[in-house]
Amino acid sequence: MVSNTAGKVICCKAAVAWEAGKPLVMEEVEVAPPQENEVRIKILFTSLCHTDVYFWEAKGQTPVFPRILGHEAGGIVESVGEGVTDLKPGDHVLPVFTGECKECQHCKSEESNMCDLLRINTDRGVMIGDGKSRFSIKGKPIYHFVGTSTFSEYTVVHVGQVAKINPAAPLDKVCVLSCGISTGLGATLNVAKPTKGSSVAIFGLGAVGLAAAEGARLAGASRIIGVDLNAKRFTEAKKFGVTEFVNPKDYNKPVQEVIAELTNGGVDRSVECTGSLNAMISAFECVHDGWGVAVLVGVPNKDDAFKTHPINLLNEKTLKGTFFGNYKPRSDLPSVVEMYMNKELELEKFITHEVPFSEINKAFEYMLKGESLRCIIRMPA
Amino acid sequence: MVSNTAGKVICCKAAVAWEAGKPLVMEEVEVAPPQENEVRIKILFTSLCHTDVYFWEAKGQTPVFPRILGHEAGGIVESVGEGVTDLKPGDHVLPVFTGECKECQHCKSEESNMCDLLRINTDRGVMIGDGKSRFSIKGKPIYHFVGTSTFSEYTVVHVGQVAKINPAAPLDKVCVLSCGISTGLGATLNVAKPTKGSSVAIFGLGAVGLAAAEGARLAGASRIIGVDLNAKRFTEAKKFGVTEFVNPKDYNKPVQEVIAELTNGGVDRSVECTGSLNAMISAFECVHDGWGVAVLVGVPNKDDAFKTHPINLLNEKTLKGTFFGNYKPRSDLPSVVEMYMNKELELEKFITHEVPFSEINKAFEYMLKGESLRCIIRMPA
Ligand SMILES: NC(=O)c1ccc[n+]([C@@H]2O[C@H](COP(=O)([O-])OP(=O)(O)OC[C@H]3O[C@@H](n4cnc5c(N)ncnc54)[C@H](O)[C@@H]3O)[C@@H](O)[C@H]2O)c1
Ligand SMILES: NC(=O)c1ccc[n+]([C@@H]2O[C@H](COP(=O)([O-])OP(=O)(O)OC[C@H]3O[C@@H](n4cnc5c(N)ncnc54)[C@H](O)[C@@H]3O)[C@@H](O)[C@H]2O)c1
Ligand SMILES: [Zn+2]
Ligand SMILES: [Zn+2]
Ligand SMILES: [Zn+2]
Ligand SMILES: [Zn+2]
Repeated sequence: MVSNTAGKVICCKAAVAWEAGKPLVMEEVEVAPPQENEVRIKILFTSLCHTDVYFWEAKGQTPVFPRILGHEAGGIVESVGEGVTDLKPGDHVLPVFTGECKECQHCKSEESNMCDLLRINTDRGVMIGDGKSRFSIKGKPIYHFVGTSTFSEYTVVHVGQVAKINPAAPLDKVCVLSCGISTGLGATLNVAKPTKGSSVAIFGLGAVGLAAAEGARLAGASRIIGVDLNAKRFTEAKKFGVTEFVNPKDYNKPVQEVIAELTNGGVDRSVECTGSLNAMISAFECVHDGWGVAVLVGVPNKDDAFKTHPINLLNEKTLKGTFFGNYKPRSDLPSVVEMYMNKELELEKFITHEVPFSEINKAFEYMLKGESLRCIIRMPA
Repeated sequence: MVSNTAGKVICCKAAVAWEAGKPLVMEEVEVAPPQENEVRIKILFTSLCHTDVYFWEAKGQTPVFPRILGHEAGGIVESVGEGVTDLKPGDHVLPVFTGECKECQHCKSEESNMCDLLRINTDRGVMIGDGKSRFSIKGKPIYHFVGTSTFSEYTVVHVGQVAKINPAAPLDKVCVLSCGISTGLGATLNVAKPTKGSSVAIFGLGAVGLAAAEGARLAGASRIIGVDLNAKRFTEAKKFGVTEFVNPKDYNKPVQEVIAELTNGGVDRSVECTGSLNAMISAFECVHDGWGVAVLVGVPNKDDAFKTHPINLLNEKTLKGTFFGNYKPRSDLPSVVEMYMNKELELEKFITHEVPFSEINKAFEYMLKGESLRCIIRMPA
């Protein structure tokens, strides 16, 4: 199957962020053909993640504008550039904000997913191959975002950042696996690895934390303790297998002590999904000595320092962090999609809202108000 | 075999610490018979560890005197108290400063060796069963040390703190496995678990660090980088398989950066055996992102805080600590003795000095001057 657009510039709609914090503007953009090791993808569904909002607000970072944001999506390959052999037009794919070149020391290691070549880079607004943008409006380049820029009907992505998935999978559901949900799920399944019947504390009950809870449920944990400062998150969390709730605000002692009392000395595993340094420290200190494992997922502030008394480590607690749930995007995402297809993993409960592409700014509002977990943005047919 | 001393008080020689920092005094002590779940052991060889010196100096701790120190030793069971079924007179044993009751949640867990009942307690100077001492001089009690008090011809130890070993093993060698050497060895073999051909950094080249290096050699690590502030330690370290040396004092940048440059981004594993907070932080930060594992062994100061930027964790480095190298004393030490018997593990190179019991204070001098790794103290025949 060769599209009749292959090799040509495509004119299509994209939601452009012209300035920090200003509503996205629907524009007609030119999308250049994919170059060597790149593919052009027709996006069918995209969803909004906090990271988009964060770089749109651009507080305390180098602003990169005008830019096309978006990094959770599902689409179909339209055409491929030179040297691309793994993908062909018509393949169903998920673009991913971080890549897998399959050749560097990380890609060759069984343990790492932090590809040297294609590791997430939020400052770069251009393609890695030639340092140029594939998007333009009347000849003026528009910047890319984390190599994906899915808030566009067509986008160009490095082949190393594209996971080919089961064509039977509904893209309006599995698109959320491009980032946050896989991150939380993998943090539990790949890194914390709770055993059947164990206890798990989840700090932060946003989409990532709820996905971590979903992982604990899948692993057969018998107690899943949700911790959040926002009591509203608790109702939702029950759907995700959370069995008990702790709001640190309800106690006048550190939450790690509360959890230790609830669990005869500490939980077997904890997963931190807040980005708050205090939560990271509590998540570490609340695991049981002798065998407890704490996994950090939240992205901290630049000058945060994680602090703990080293005796907590000598007491045989383990502290780990994870990036994208330790999933290798190309090698592992297809099997996460299969978990959904086999009805093990439930994705519907993460999807709280849906809007047409033309109303993409509403998705930002839902997230900013804390109303949504995931809002699916439907591209025009 | 029933000894004719069973059930009776034994009078024998012991080296008593009467006061903090004052030379031990050889005294005639009465050693009461073992009570329920206790065994009385004839000590043949004992060795000196930093922890003895530390509690003898008693700087900044509650002083517990008069006390019989000593916790690395090899001996033979003289008699057993009520309820002891695992051991009988004549068994060759190593007393251990921390125990294994085989019944608590830690003993039942495959991952932990931090027995709830018999975990090291340096403040307690009495037996756990009845809260009394088994040692006395003219009726006046003399305190125990970590339940072992091996600087005595006879001592009484809880059965949970006694490892029964191969009677063919030479006690003047394997006695060093009671504490420091097993701690370092296990930190590498059981916790850091370097793979064949990997790189390992060892911080601190005292007895514990050199045992960690021995573990790296046994595991087939191809690069073993020794880090110490004391350049003298380097010569000795070569015998332990250390292939490269880094002295942090030789550089005006953090040692973790020096190691990252030497190793294309970081070592695969690091083991910290210094007790210095700076070394702990460097040991963590010098491991490779994606897969590096750092293991802390050194005992920190009371008010130390381990600090690092959480991004180091999100970059998929793992931080662990260990207590007694994660060995369960009764279940695992016998097999460490077998490693020596099979000539895999070399112990002779740790033994730099030997003195008769009457000259035990010399062992303290050698250690305080930093001349010895291990000094064996030979009890009278
Ligand atoms: N969203 C993603 O795709 C993604 C991917 C990788 C990593 N991360 C990181 O994971 C973290 C969570 O992401 P999210 O999208 O679920 O965010 P979110 O804002 O929806 O949820 C975070 C939750 O943590 C709670 N929280 C904040 N401080 C807390 C504290 N001290 N104790 C307990 N709860 C606390 C908040 O009330 C909130 O409910 C973020 O740091 C994010 O950067 C996110
Ligand atoms: N000795 C034991 O039986 C035992 C058992 C468990 C734990 N530990 C702990 O393990 C640690 C090591 O014990 P040891 O008996 O080998 O001690 P040691 O004093 O013989 O050796 C420690 C070494 O660390 C070096 N060092 C100190 N600060 C350093 C730094 N910042 N960077 C690099 N090197 C540094 C010293 O120069 C010294 O050579 C101690 O903290 C001890 O409490 C010991
Ligand atoms: Zn790679
Ligand atoms: Zn995201
Ligand atoms: Zn126990
Ligand atoms: Zn010791």
